[in-house]
Amino acid sequence: MTFTGISEQEVDRAYDSLKNDALDGGYRLNPDAEFVKNLIRGLLKNEQRYGYRACPCRLASGKMEVDLDIVCPCDYRDSDIEEYGACYCALYVSEAITDGTRKVAPVPERRPPRSQRGTMKERAVQTVAVGGGTTFGSLPFPVWRCKVCGYLCARDQPPGICPVCKAKKDRFERFL
Amino acid sequence: MTFTGISEQEVDRAYDSLKNDALDGGYRLNPDAEFVKNLIRGLLKNEQRYGYRACPCRLASGKMEVDLDIVCPCDYRDSDIEEYGACYCALYVSEAITDGTRKVAPVPERRPPRSQRGTMKERAVQTVAVGGGTTFGSLPFPVWRCKVCGYLCARDQPPGICPVCKAKKDRFERFL
Amino acid sequence: MTFTGISEQEVDRAYDSLKNDALDGGYRLNPDAEFVKNLIRGLLKNEQRYGYRACPCRLASGKMEVDLDIVCPCDYRDSDIEEYGACYCALYVSEAITDGTRKVAPVPERRPPRSQRGTMKERAVQTVAVGGGTTFGSLPFPVWRCKVCGYLCARDQPPGICPVCKAKKDRFERFL
Repeated sequence: MTFTGISEQEVDRAYDSLKNDALDGGYRLNPDAEFVKNLIRGLLKNEQRYGYRACPCRLASGKMEVDLDIVCPCDYRDSDIEEYGACYCALYVSEAITDGTRKVAPVPERRPPRSQRGTMKERAVQTVAVGGGTTFGSLPFPVWRCKVCGYLCARDQPPGICPVCKAKKDRFERFL
Repeated sequence: MTFTGISEQEVDRAYDSLKNDALDGGYRLNPDAEFVKNLIRGLLKNEQRYGYRACPCRLASGKMEVDLDIVCPCDYRDSDIEEYGACYCALYVSEAITDGTRKVAPVPERRPPRSQRGTMKERAVQTVAVGGGTTFGSLPFPVWRCKVCGYLCARDQPPGICPVCKAKKDRFERFL
Repeated sequence: MTFTGISEQEVDRAYDSLKNDALDGGYRLNPDAEFVKNLIRGLLKNEQRYGYRACPCRLASGKMEVDLDIVCPCDYRDSDIEEYGACYCALYVSEAITDGTRKVAPVPERRPPRSQRGTMKERAVQTVAVGGGTTFGSLPFPVWRCKVCGYLCARDQPPGICPVCKAKKDRFERFL
């Protein structure tokens, strides 16, 4: 496989697209545009190399089914933004970072070692037949409800911003 | 605390941002732009005064945890649009209002008196252990499903427009 | 009822609106803009004739309650995009079509005959009282969860793109 150079135009286009998607979904890119574009170069290089945008700050295996959790945005982004104010790469950051009320600090690796990754599946819900109906085993994630618009999502914590009505995190309540 | 004046530029910026968020989420601002900008001045003044955008048509306490339900958009907006065609301030309105097929009329206060507000939490779902699984007590809100795209939300009534695929209210069905 | 002509300006406006809504929700219009505009002419004509945008490739009855499932976007769009790469009209297509890695092919009619349409409702969930709580009968659709952002939706298959965070289909897991 030969690598073709990545033009500045491609980087700029990917930057605009990533930024729009982030804003639409209630996410925020790191305000340092040059820093972000460097990460985008890594993403585009990985896309050429592997066929998917593996996280530029982690070592990809090259096997998509093994790397699926670190295709950007990774499965760990939202928990890292919640706890550390930024994802592992600091590509996505919290409002406190863009506001300047918090500084970006190193984010420890949340991805479990490969031998333990399979066990994530065991968090999956188990349905149990009860008296002709179906009852659910413990849910793998709590379900949160936006009190403003009724949006539902299943995550460890509610999102920073409701992707539907843009209400802030404190407007969410536990639903299930 | 001193109040700084609110510039027309700030009002215009807030107006554009509110309008975009409204359209993205399937909501509509009052078509009278001057009326809306006046409400926005109230919102921005409250933000300076309290640190959050309390409803400009209600008396805020100044304690965020007490006022959380009336931070704009308030917890009552969607039910008021549903029943009266507009929120309490008439900042957000129904399609019938923007179409001109319905007129804005006074909206009675839906917010419960303070002594009764705590009881809202008692609507929250209670999980009950049944035979090793989990079953749910009565859900605090029905869950609606968009028949076009599968979007789920928990509200008294389905939304006027699906925020994901823009299908209208009559395409929703009760899911849970 | 008299039909007024549909101006090119109206067609263009409807095209822009449809395209924006599609992109926002993770959908894609057929890349052939002239083909799409022809379908839009049919939609606008149906809107004049019946008062709603019935599918331009099917025979509408003129009774909204009977045609609700074929108001565009129809209830069958997502399953057809999933299975055939395009909706019945080929107005909406899959990424593989816009990429050019798959060609548009005829899509068989998925809409059940009228006599069987009522039975769809029998798929609806039935709640069963169990030991003071509520348990659910079999869910009419599986609930899928985006592993990146926690978005939940109830459909036969997960969507091609998460409407909230734009993660691809393979990032969804069965939740309920």
